[in-house]
Amino acid sequence: MLTNIRNVRVEWCDCDPAGIIFYPRYFEMFDTCTTALIERALGMRKIEYLKAYGFAGHPLVATRARFRLPTRFGDEVAIESALVACGRSSFKVEHRLSKAGALAVEGFETRVWVGRAADDPQRLKSREMPPDMLARLQHGG
Amino acid sequence: MLTNIRNVRVEWCDCDPAGIIFYPRYFEMFDTCTTALIERALGMRKIEYLKAYGFAGHPLVATRARFRLPTRFGDEVAIESALVACGRSSFKVEHRLSKAGALAVEGFETRVWVGRAADDPQRLKSREMPPDMLARLQHGG
Amino acid sequence: MLTNIRNVRVEWCDCDPAGIIFYPRYFEMFDTCTTALIERALGMRKIEYLKAYGFAGHPLVATRARFRLPTRFGDEVAIESALVACGRSSFKVEHRLSKAGALAVEGFETRVWVGRAADDPQRLKSREMPPDMLARLQHGG
Amino acid sequence: MLTNIRNVRVEWCDCDPAGIIFYPRYFEMFDTCTTALIERALGMRKIEYLKAYGFAGHPLVATRARFRLPTRFGDEVAIESALVACGRSSFKVEHRLSKAGALAVEGFETRVWVGRAADDPQRLKSREMPPDMLARLQHGG
Repeated sequence: MLTNIRNVRVEWCDCDPAGIIFYPRYFEMFDTCTTALIERALGMRKIEYLKAYGFAGHPLVATRARFRLPTRFGDEVAIESALVACGRSSFKVEHRLSKAGALAVEGFETRVWVGRAADDPQRLKSREMPPDMLARLQHGG
Repeated sequence: MLTNIRNVRVEWCDCDPAGIIFYPRYFEMFDTCTTALIERALGMRKIEYLKAYGFAGHPLVATRARFRLPTRFGDEVAIESALVACGRSSFKVEHRLSKAGALAVEGFETRVWVGRAADDPQRLKSREMPPDMLARLQHGG
Repeated sequence: MLTNIRNVRVEWCDCDPAGIIFYPRYFEMFDTCTTALIERALGMRKIEYLKAYGFAGHPLVATRARFRLPTRFGDEVAIESALVACGRSSFKVEHRLSKAGALAVEGFETRVWVGRAADDPQRLKSREMPPDMLARLQHGG
Repeated sequence: MLTNIRNVRVEWCDCDPAGIIFYPRYFEMFDTCTTALIERALGMRKIEYLKAYGFAGHPLVATRARFRLPTRFGDEVAIESALVACGRSSFKVEHRLSKAGALAVEGFETRVWVGRAADDPQRLKSREMPPDMLARLQHGG
């Protein structure tokens, strides 16, 4: 199974007037972690894999998260991400964010691959991965 | 049941290189909608109700969302928020974001009330609402 | 001279652990104000005017700001924006953000119009406005 | 002179529909760089130096920036920050962000130290650094 770990420091810019992280920032972090996971499997940066395979992105269709412990500016956290399911047109990623070894946040996301519609580049439409790309994601790069 | 509707325009600053909203921005919008809901019930702005009742905030313990239709910069959306459960120390809010009458995003959140620990203002701890505040939320203001 | 006023409420999501707005959020607001100014002159939404005239955006080449008074969540502010200079390929906008009638922030920006390079859509290059578009901006719509 | 270098990767979450970084994100990066600079001089994390010296933060009174080259998601950039002036109540920082050795963005900021007003913790007021803290910043830690 494809996995990746990123170490991130929570910063002042991530935090709200309560002094803790403003939770949408966790989703920003998870988005970057999912990119890192796919980059690792494909051996290309996102800007490259989007271009190479003709995708516009891999937006979410669903997500959920549980926030178990607060984090605040200056905290060093580790985010373990795993590709837990991967079909031709959609995939699922789970993220476990921990602080000093304790699980602080769990995130779950389901994403689809999209390309640009031929007749209107501003419109996105679902698009399947070619077999070689799918194989790389399913076998961990 | 306490409800509120906010009309929001998705802006360039909310969107990503695919040209659609970057999904953590939905959670920012939902956070503002939850504040508006409580402000409506209590007849006070957030900065006032936090001070009046001695809270530091109402952070999330869990959330989930489904993204059914994409939105992009310039789209006018309406967000209906409802307080679907409210106890002394936690509450649940549901958000339905629609575009041109079609449901685009659903968000669900569970939050708790927190205050600052007496011995360390940087540490947050769970805190119950006083009865008059609870009554206002449960009876819609 | 082309001008526009937007009324904005500073929200919890805009503020940092000091309880005041995190200053990059002012630049987000100013970006939206500049869009509103151009939309007003052209009578089109940004997504429409980019497409109609073949632009990818109007990124900044320089900006500066002075922060005179703090703002915090719940504050209602008014932002007056004015197109103070407009040539074929660049333009300047000034923003004055006030709170309860008092000037809180001044912002100044210089922007250029860019299109996508014919040989590589990911690369941006400077591009001049067609005369009818320029005339609308210079004469205030 | 106190200096620091941070290496940052521009991510998808930092970029706009033109495919380049949304410029307020540069200010977020600069804010984190200024924190890193002070942390280096004082040998404490921000959450610790704010507490140790009784400050609420070091907000900006003025900033300006020049954007020379665009950056996009996947770009690795280096940000050199220098404390170019430091008095008892205000200081100036310059940031130079480069990509593959070429200067892409220059940022200049003037900040003040603030504490919380004794009679109203939500109100901020200017506050001077104690001599030992000032000496550490002026002599580079």
